[in-house]
Amino acid sequence: MYNPQLNRHGELTHLISTEGLPRDILTHILDTASTFVPLADREVKKVPLLRGKSVFNLFFENSTRTRTTFEIAATRLSADVFNLNINASSASKGETLLDTIANLSAMQADIFVVRHEASGAPYLIARHVAPHVHVINAGDGRHAHPTQALLDMYTIRHFKKSFSDLTVAVVGDVMHSRVARSNIHALTTLGVAEVRAIGPLTLLPGGLDQMGVKTFTRMEEGLRDVDVIIMLRLQNERMRGALLPSSHEYFKHYGLTEDKLARAKPDVLVMHPGPMNRGVEIASSVADGPNSVILNQVTFGIAVRMAVMSIVAGASA
Amino acid sequence: MYNPQLNRHGELTHLISTEGLPRDILTHILDTASTFVPLADREVKKVPLLRGKSVFNLFFENSTRTRTTFEIAATRLSADVFNLNINASSASKGETLLDTIANLSAMQADIFVVRHEASGAPYLIARHVAPHVHVINAGDGRHAHPTQALLDMYTIRHFKKSFSDLTVAVVGDVMHSRVARSNIHALTTLGVAEVRAIGPLTLLPGGLDQMGVKTFTRMEEGLRDVDVIIMLRLQNERMRGALLPSSHEYFKHYGLTEDKLARAKPDVLVMHPGPMNRGVEIASSVADGPNSVILNQVTFGIAVRMAVMSIVAGASA
Amino acid sequence: MYNPQLNRHGELTHLISTEGLPRDILTHILDTASTFVPLADREVKKVPLLRGKSVFNLFFENSTRTRTTFEIAATRLSADVFNLNINASSASKGETLLDTIANLSAMQADIFVVRHEASGAPYLIARHVAPHVHVINAGDGRHAHPTQALLDMYTIRHFKKSFSDLTVAVVGDVMHSRVARSNIHALTTLGVAEVRAIGPLTLLPGGLDQMGVKTFTRMEEGLRDVDVIIMLRLQNERMRGALLPSSHEYFKHYGLTEDKLARAKPDVLVMHPGPMNRGVEIASSVADGPNSVILNQVTFGIAVRMAVMSIVAGASA
Repeated sequence: MYNPQLNRHGELTHLISTEGLPRDILTHILDTASTFVPLADREVKKVPLLRGKSVFNLFFENSTRTRTTFEIAATRLSADVFNLNINASSASKGETLLDTIANLSAMQADIFVVRHEASGAPYLIARHVAPHVHVINAGDGRHAHPTQALLDMYTIRHFKKSFSDLTVAVVGDVMHSRVARSNIHALTTLGVAEVRAIGPLTLLPGGLDQMGVKTFTRMEEGLRDVDVIIMLRLQNERMRGALLPSSHEYFKHYGLTEDKLARAKPDVLVMHPGPMNRGVEIASSVADGPNSVILNQVTFGIAVRMAVMSIVAGASA
Repeated sequence: MYNPQLNRHGELTHLISTEGLPRDILTHILDTASTFVPLADREVKKVPLLRGKSVFNLFFENSTRTRTTFEIAATRLSADVFNLNINASSASKGETLLDTIANLSAMQADIFVVRHEASGAPYLIARHVAPHVHVINAGDGRHAHPTQALLDMYTIRHFKKSFSDLTVAVVGDVMHSRVARSNIHALTTLGVAEVRAIGPLTLLPGGLDQMGVKTFTRMEEGLRDVDVIIMLRLQNERMRGALLPSSHEYFKHYGLTEDKLARAKPDVLVMHPGPMNRGVEIASSVADGPNSVILNQVTFGIAVRMAVMSIVAGASA
Repeated sequence: MYNPQLNRHGELTHLISTEGLPRDILTHILDTASTFVPLADREVKKVPLLRGKSVFNLFFENSTRTRTTFEIAATRLSADVFNLNINASSASKGETLLDTIANLSAMQADIFVVRHEASGAPYLIARHVAPHVHVINAGDGRHAHPTQALLDMYTIRHFKKSFSDLTVAVVGDVMHSRVARSNIHALTTLGVAEVRAIGPLTLLPGGLDQMGVKTFTRMEEGLRDVDVIIMLRLQNERMRGALLPSSHEYFKHYGLTEDKLARAKPDVLVMHPGPMNRGVEIASSVADGPNSVILNQVTFGIAVRMAVMSIVAGASA
């Protein structure tokens, strides 16, 4: 089966989505990331793996935080990073996306990190770049956010050691969430015992059953005995129409409180991709509580992005 | 007495304000800066002191020039610099300031350079960062701008050799000026003979007497026999209501002209933090005249910021 | 004759315009660029020629792509690059251009790359900078865009080996184009056999005859037997009033189609400075066709900008 993310040797050459990535590739990324985590405690937090390589941060949609995590990861690999906020430039001059990409490729880019509001844009770009360019999806529309999913997997493995016995709940606006989608694919491939999706009926997409995901509309039920809770950000900007009651109502039913958390296992991990809306999807006491690994996710995120960059840069086309 | 800027060994670990900083700390910064000044004439203007360290420029308020001076200083120390214009990002997504800071800390920052429109924000941040992070205030509201004050002190010491015999006048909108406030504290601590504040009565804050500052509403009197004049920028954007007549009227009374300058000592230093409003607070002939050290201030500013960064980075928490 | 671009040894110290640059200087830039082109295929695409030097990208007019090409070029020479979007900063605070420049010079800049909407701004800056600062024009108003012209010359020489036998057509909105102006001067100095300008009468400036340029209002005639076609971007934002019919009409008469291309020599080079308006000034089949060297221009542009930077940085004042 053709997989645009792998080269003919089966190596990762682009990272577009966790969907369709074999388990050994996911595991290889996590293993590689674990070699970068100890760097954080060193005096000089850098390795020369990508020295002289050019990483282009192509952000068609603004996201200072995500851009910064990639910029840090590339810099710690000693790459040169060029930040392009593309909205402001060529797009407005009538140039096509593929012409923009062809031009940037011609500047001898090695890696494009792409954030785009349109689902599928990174895939389109990966299909058209010169063979020496590797594409990493930093979030596209409602489609995928694979590095977020990978850092979530890293965090789970770090604390739980293995995936096979775990019950993991993804909570909130599952329908509009690229984070949810990428996590569900990764969790399934890595073989967790059970994946659950919890949210109001209007925010649970169809097709979850076919993916082996159990759906719940009540937190009290869905959180029972889970090992990991992945809270989703309530992205007001992505909501259309009146799918949701007030944020106060939302918090009452789906906000993660200590009360609801008590249904889960005592050593449950509480995760959130950030930025958090305290008092909307999560109570402050839980966000800052003993089960929260939210800041660990951020730290591991740097190592995971270093891993992805170093792996794709090492793959031939 | 607890001082949030010093660690338990009495070393500078954050730079929030010149207020409360002991004289030996100020002198240590100026001495360290003097070792960096000669770098400017070298072929390679860099030293490896902060190699592998991450400096985050967190500008909640836009200031291209100040950001650039810190970026240059960090780069010449061989640090990696990440520029974050925070207004545009998380703040607008409902995340709290402290969550933003916690997240950035988790990316293994070493230094946060913080510019914020709210007085006290850098202090709040310094109270909450992880122990390995050092905070440098790059200007907060009307409160403080300590690196500007330190570079002013450096400039004065460079040209006048010592502080003890000097009479220094701070001129203009003293009430709204973080530069004035930080300079007055630094000058007092370093033991100048006399500090004067000159401005319209409506722009002279109360409490100057208690700080030992003599106030004047007429330039002709206030400038008599001074050794140093620190002009302030007229920050229209910070003025509320009709405290001021027209800028033409202002120039007539408080603009530094050759005429008024003649009241000062012949070797008086004329300083300005920039950007200048020529013809409003200062006449062009004075700004470009033989007593002006305005561009020296800029050059010394790089060395002073290098000094502050290298000192705090060397301090334990 | 006084030439502000050359020092008293006749060496290039600023690059403001191709007008008035002697042929040996142009040739020296192209020869130097040719030593940088092979870098693209190396594992580490960098040389340490400008290590420790500070390059300031001063973009008074936004242009992400042009800024990026200079940023890449400077980075590959190992310089430190500081990007300043000046519109947003001091300009709005009432500071004069020359004060901004004096301040940035005082930060020990080595090279200013200047983009400005006003014709002549880089020249004004070059006249006033400190002797250790070199100015490179990255496009000023309708005046000049010398690095674009130089990369066009590099591309022509790369494919055609020599200039002397060539007929080159510049097509489109010649009147408003700094690219056209800079190319015409460079082509003339390098001694091509014939330069042609093709466009609607309203977009052909007066004075072309005196420069030895033949003018044509019909593509069918103007393209006959040419060796090189330099298409110009139709810059709607630069057009005033009703000089042009619809873009559909424009394409019909002046868009480069396969049909019109057939009038030129079979091995004609098709060039475009980008970003392209497909279907307005050029047909997609031509832009992507066998005669197009548009992406080669981009690649050579990096090497040419490296050449210019390394040459001016090596010149004394």
